[in-house]
Order: sequence, then structure tokens, then C-alpha cells
Amino acid sequence: MSPATTPEPPYYAVIFTSRRRAAPGDGYEATAERMIELARARPGFLGVESARDEIGITVSYWDDLDAIAAWKADGEHLLAQAEGRDRWYARYAVRIARVEKEYGFTREE
Amino acid sequence: MSPATTPEPPYYAVIFTSRRRAAPGDGYEATAERMIELARARPGFLGVESARDEIGITVSYWDDLDAIAAWKADGEHLLAQAEGRDRWYARYAVRIARVEKEYGFTREE
Repeated sequence: MSPATTPEPPYYAVIFTSRRRAAPGDGYEATAERMIELARARPGFLGVESARDEIGITVSYWDDLDAIAAWKADGEHLLAQAEGRDRWYARYAVRIARVEKEYGFTREE
Repeated sequence: MSPATTPEPPYYAVIFTSRRRAAPGDGYEATAERMIELARARPGFLGVESARDEIGITVSYWDDLDAIAAWKADGEHLLAQAEGRDRWYARYAVRIARVEKEYGFTREE
């Protein structure tokens, strides 16, 4: 995984931050990978970035709020959300944000 | 580190995503920790979340764009930014976003 390449702002970000349970139950990794695969295939998807150590942070980027709402309501995603609350997460936060500015750096060597 | 506790939106997020160099040079960890310590002490700071595996993602939350601009222009932070480009990072992206909606989940047990 690399930092995502996204178009000129404005576009939207979904910042999903989570802390896992100590004994989270199995199936987490496979479902997490599957959700990223499904998200990538959706209309309006622009990119995704994910990292986990003590907490996990997944940021997905989208054209607009409609694309985000449709992904949230996807059937397989709804099942994964329910399983996350039942088994995997001690806590999570979802923040929906409008990206207004972007800049970056790429090493030349 | 836990998912940040933030006030009712709207507020702002700075999403900093980075990929380290293979041989990044030393001093990275200490500076990264110092920058979080400095950010926490600034006016307008609301919270921070950070995780790293293949890539690093640090999301900081702020009252408004002025607080973000002032933190970007902080002297010690400017030095760290330059050192990041000189030594530590292969690539990074900075995205400034207006958080419009937030919801979450906390396990009761």
C-alpha cells in the first residue's frame, strides 16, 4: 500500500479509526481485505490508505457524499459493520470530511 | 493511542500519509513524537491519531484553518518538515479536510 493518488480537491474522505478488542475473534483480516476490494470496485471511489499498530486508521477517498452513503448501505458491507460491532472492535470513530486542499512530496532519486 | 475524542462537527482534519525511505536515517521516531507533543500544546488542537505499518497515517484535528496554518509555520515544525524531505520520507501527501459528520461505537462490557 502507498499513499493514495487522488484528483484535485474538492473530494471527500472517510476517516475510519478503530481500536480492536483484546480477543477479537477470527475472520477480521479476511473481511478487512474484502471490504477494501469491494470499495475499490464502487463508483465514485478514488483511493484508500490503511495502517494499523495500536490503533487502525483507514482513510478512503470518494467523489461525493452519495458515493459514501451508497457504500455504507452495501449489503456485504452492512454485514461486516455488524460483525465489527459484535466481535472485532472495542471502539471506532467514522468521520466524513470534505478535502479542500492537498499537497505532497515525492523523492527524486 | 486511542481514537481521538473530538467535538461536534464542523472542525478540520489534517491527513498526513507517508511512506518511509528504506534507509531513512536516524532521529525519525524522536522527532515524530516531539511533533505530536508540540501539536497537542497548540491553540485550536482537538486531537490526533497515528498508525504505521507499510505506510504511516497521522490525522490531527483542529478548530479551524488558521490553527492549521499556524502549526504548519511553527519554527521547530518547519525544521522537522525539511528533515522529513531530506532524510525520512520517500513520499508523502497532506490533505486538509473539513469534517462534516462524525459517528462512532464504543463497546459496553
